[in-house]
Amino acid sequence: MANGIERPLDLLNVSKGKEVLIQLKNEKQFVGTLMAFDIHINIVLDNTKEMKDGEVKKNLGLTFLRGDTIIFISPAGTNLD
Amino acid sequence: MANGIERPLDLLNVSKGKEVLIQLKNEKQFVGTLMAFDIHINIVLDNTKEMKDGEVKKNLGLTFLRGDTIIFISPAGTNLD
Amino acid sequence: MANGIERPLDLLNVSKGKEVLIQLKNEKQFVGTLMAFDIHINIVLDNTKEMKDGEVKKNLGLTFLRGDTIIFISPAGTNLD
Amino acid sequence: MANGIERPLDLLNVSKGKEVLIQLKNEKQFVGTLMAFDIHINIVLDNTKEMKDGEVKKNLGLTFLRGDTIIFISPAGTNLD
Amino acid sequence: MANGIERPLDLLNVSKGKEVLIQLKNEKQFVGTLMAFDIHINIVLDNTKEMKDGEVKKNLGLTFLRGDTIIFISPAGTNLD
Amino acid sequence: MANGIERPLDLLNVSKGKEVLIQLKNEKQFVGTLMAFDIHINIVLDNTKEMKDGEVKKNLGLTFLRGDTIIFISPAGTNLD
Amino acid sequence: MANGIERPLDLLNVSKGKEVLIQLKNEKQFVGTLMAFDIHINIVLDNTKEMKDGEVKKNLGLTFLRGDTIIFISPAGTNLD
Repeated sequence: MANGIERPLDLLNVSKGKEVLIQLKNEKQFVGTLMAFDIHINIVLDNTKEMKDGEVKKNLGLTFLRGDTIIFISPAGTNLD
Repeated sequence: MANGIERPLDLLNVSKGKEVLIQLKNEKQFVGTLMAFDIHINIVLDNTKEMKDGEVKKNLGLTFLRGDTIIFISPAGTNLD
Repeated sequence: MANGIERPLDLLNVSKGKEVLIQLKNEKQFVGTLMAFDIHINIVLDNTKEMKDGEVKKNLGLTFLRGDTIIFISPAGTNLD
Repeated sequence: MANGIERPLDLLNVSKGKEVLIQLKNEKQFVGTLMAFDIHINIVLDNTKEMKDGEVKKNLGLTFLRGDTIIFISPAGTNLD
Repeated sequence: MANGIERPLDLLNVSKGKEVLIQLKNEKQFVGTLMAFDIHINIVLDNTKEMKDGEVKKNLGLTFLRGDTIIFISPAGTNLD
Repeated sequence: MANGIERPLDLLNVSKGKEVLIQLKNEKQFVGTLMAFDIHINIVLDNTKEMKDGEVKKNLGLTFLRGDTIIFISPAGTNLD
Repeated sequence: MANGIERPLDLLNVSKGKEVLIQLKNEKQFVGTLMAFDIHINIVLDNTKEMKDGEVKKNLGLTFLRGDTIIFISPAGTNLD
């Protein structure tokens, strides 16, 4: 997979259709299936769950997340080793 | 519907005329019918209700929401399964 | 009126000359007659009243509001039903 | 005067040479004679007074105010009626 | 001097080589000789003194100030009357 | 190595494939292998560890970090002397 | 040296290879040798020391500092007199 990641957006591209964890600036986290993204890092997740302290707070289904609220995006189970 | 969402704004496009939940950075939420949006994620809702902790705080009718105050937008009842 | 709102700025356009409620990020609200706006959502109101908790705090007459301080703009009495 | 205000900056243009009240994001207010402005809403005031709670805190003479700190600008005595 | 100030940056231009007071968003003030500025309002001061509550806190010599931290810039002794 | 660093992004370029420490604005730190970056300082790390007060709080694997949340990036063991 | 500083970035240019003090918005200070900068005021320091209240908190070696977190940059010992 290391070969496929030349630029940061490549990681989002290879994560389409997979579950990702998204950390927002307001301390909240979202877990869901990555459906779409753009250069502003606007994101669409499906089966979105709003998390806090490891617990599901809300089920949101399809959700549009505005890019400027995002700190990090981490696909589940993607260590390179 | 998965076919219709190539880019994040596609979710807003297919949600026109439907009820959406919008979470703002200042902790407030708005529920209303999505009438229009632009690339800045400026939004016009109709039958807008300002919510807090699940309760309606104010009825606002047609409302223009400035995009840079928005965290997420989630159409009601849109899980992909 | 639904026909007239294809893009978010259309709502501001049809609200010219009418009373609007503007919510700012600093918790304050302004009520006044919408005289002008631009793509940055900079606004000119006339007969501007600064409100807090439903009470008039100050009469400001003509006022220029900088767009980046605005959360929402809602024309008075504009439900679509 | 309503005729003269098609765009928000028109209000600043007709207010040149007149006294204006400027509210900043940090709760402070400035009163002075509007000398110049640009599209970023950068402002030069003359005879500038920094106000707090209606009292003069400091006399500043000519002052350059950076646009992104401004909430509103209101010329003195400009109701349209 | 009123003749020389058509645009906000004109005030900075006529203040080159003179002492100015600069108020930052983080409550601190800088006093120094204005050496240079650009359109982002990035500033170079010489003989810079960091002030708090009217007292010198630190002598900084030549200092580059990033424009987006600045609230206002006021040249010393520049009332127009 | 001093020869190789003409512009700030050159440091990120020579750090590809190496371990870096990234400090975020929200007080958190990330340690991981630098895989990719762009001009917005968006970053992809591998074997990412979220740190607080020198302790590992979470193992994140591959992670996309949005550039506007970053304060500094420091490659491990890179003093020039 | 006054001759060499027409624009703010000129001060950074003449400070290359010298020790500078950098104040960040989050109250922290960095001292190090200025290696590189760009128009966003992104900076690379070498032999970087993170300071707080005049004490070294951490030795960081080569460090990339993102420009939008910077308040001021002051080269050591550069008064013009």
